[in-house]
Amino acid sequence: MRYAKIVFDTKELMQDAPCKELAAAGAACETGPAREGALFVSADPEAVDAAFAAGFPCALALWTGVPARHARATHYLRAPYDLVDLLTRREDVYDGLEWMKTAVEMQFIAQAGLAYSKDPYDIERFGRLRELAAEMLARGSGLPMRTVRDVFLCETGYQTPKIDTRAAIVEEGRILLVQENTGLWALPGGWMDVNTTISQNTAKEAFEEAGLQVPPRRLIALQEHNLHNPPTLAIGIVKVFVLCERLSGNFQANIETIRSGFFSPEELPPLATSKTTEAQVRMCLAAAKDKHWQPLFD
Amino acid sequence: MRYAKIVFDTKELMQDAPCKELAAAGAACETGPAREGALFVSADPEAVDAAFAAGFPCALALWTGVPARHARATHYLRAPYDLVDLLTRREDVYDGLEWMKTAVEMQFIAQAGLAYSKDPYDIERFGRLRELAAEMLARGSGLPMRTVRDVFLCETGYQTPKIDTRAAIVEEGRILLVQENTGLWALPGGWMDVNTTISQNTAKEAFEEAGLQVPPRRLIALQEHNLHNPPTLAIGIVKVFVLCERLSGNFQANIETIRSGFFSPEELPPLATSKTTEAQVRMCLAAAKDKHWQPLFD
Repeated sequence: MRYAKIVFDTKELMQDAPCKELAAAGAACETGPAREGALFVSADPEAVDAAFAAGFPCALALWTGVPARHARATHYLRAPYDLVDLLTRREDVYDGLEWMKTAVEMQFIAQAGLAYSKDPYDIERFGRLRELAAEMLARGSGLPMRTVRDVFLCETGYQTPKIDTRAAIVEEGRILLVQENTGLWALPGGWMDVNTTISQNTAKEAFEEAGLQVPPRRLIALQEHNLHNPPTLAIGIVKVFVLCERLSGNFQANIETIRSGFFSPEELPPLATSKTTEAQVRMCLAAAKDKHWQPLFD
Repeated sequence: MRYAKIVFDTKELMQDAPCKELAAAGAACETGPAREGALFVSADPEAVDAAFAAGFPCALALWTGVPARHARATHYLRAPYDLVDLLTRREDVYDGLEWMKTAVEMQFIAQAGLAYSKDPYDIERFGRLRELAAEMLARGSGLPMRTVRDVFLCETGYQTPKIDTRAAIVEEGRILLVQENTGLWALPGGWMDVNTTISQNTAKEAFEEAGLQVPPRRLIALQEHNLHNPPTLAIGIVKVFVLCERLSGNFQANIETIRSGFFSPEELPPLATSKTTEAQVRMCLAAAKDKHWQPLFD
């Protein structure tokens, strides 16, 4: 997923792309034909097909209109900012943690089987499969079996990712961050409560952690934690980023955060990257500037 | 939340509103001053404040630009379609089920306490609170305590809503629905798997249930199940609606669905309303028509 160079086949396409953000993510933008070591981006399905057949990594741009025919491509881009998303994704999600990926999938299959299967023998098999997954997790993580059992064996019903909401409050190109007890900074936010909506939860967390009344305005992105934030976790989390507006309020000391402040992407304080990465801060700032932003959801 | 009449304070504002959809939801659109029995909609904070002070239900329209000063309003509308959302929400969410609302919140508080509390006495109290909630749920639902215990007492860690994704595939003003084994119809979709993204899960479910390759294009909405779909459930569910495009494929017999077809909102077949309501179908069709649609998330 890392490319040091991005080659657009037309100037118009390159003008749509957030080249400044791409540079910050380590990739230079150019125009020209597909070539070795670079990601080729085109809205022309034939050009993309040809690049793909020749073995060049290539992306089909869909934001200028959907092409009539299908093209094989390494990546499909719904919006120009998807390029930044591609470049800032974690590559090391399961490095050295292949056992975790396997155990998580085993546990997931077993739990779905236990939720839906009607055959008593299958249910027995799924029960045992779940135990095996827990044993793998306990061995791999060094946690006592009892702890792993509590977290993984007890959740019943179909298992879906958990939800975390984050408020992006942007003023004059700077974003509001809060400092946690650990000393690290993050966008105000947290686990979504049951009996609330995405919008309500976002506002509630921003009020609790930053002392502000911030009506949520627009969705920015739904991101899978493991693709964007370290460390790799054995549960799924969908992080929901919401653009909010500051209406009133002031920071108040509370049990979770000790300070708040506005920061530009060039002068970010040390981030709690399991909650907010620099790429996520930049994404929120880009969304705030763009009235026609389409939320990312991959 | 039900209004038979919506009064906009200017013609321009009324032109932005989806009056056809509002009529389908049972509300006539007019212009004029705030009045009894109608919902007054204005972008002018002073007009809204005055209506609020006079006791008229009123909504502040934010889509024409955010007003400089705060106004007290019964509702705040980010997009014109929020009006339809307001009118099509379930009003009877907890009718006769107040005990369930209480039990769910008790269980939610207890689980958060168990996840975070360090005080052994508090942990004991939260454990007992969780049992009380389960007893209430068992009594109220007529389910054996063992079943309730499995579903509610065993989930550990912070409890967040589950995620369900739904694909909206629209062609010529008609939407694709699949018929389930029960005979009822719904948008293709289902629980979100761990280790996938919103986009991947949407495409996977559409392929499994409708046999189609449908690249997801845009987010339509994140809706809380209990506010939009019956029956009221004791768990939270965020339903994610994604606009997709049909690329290729044909319906194939499978274990979940028996048929598929395109339908206009005027000739819908019997819906599995716990999965898809008529209001949700209309919302998806409205989003498909509107290139500048901003996803709903309340």
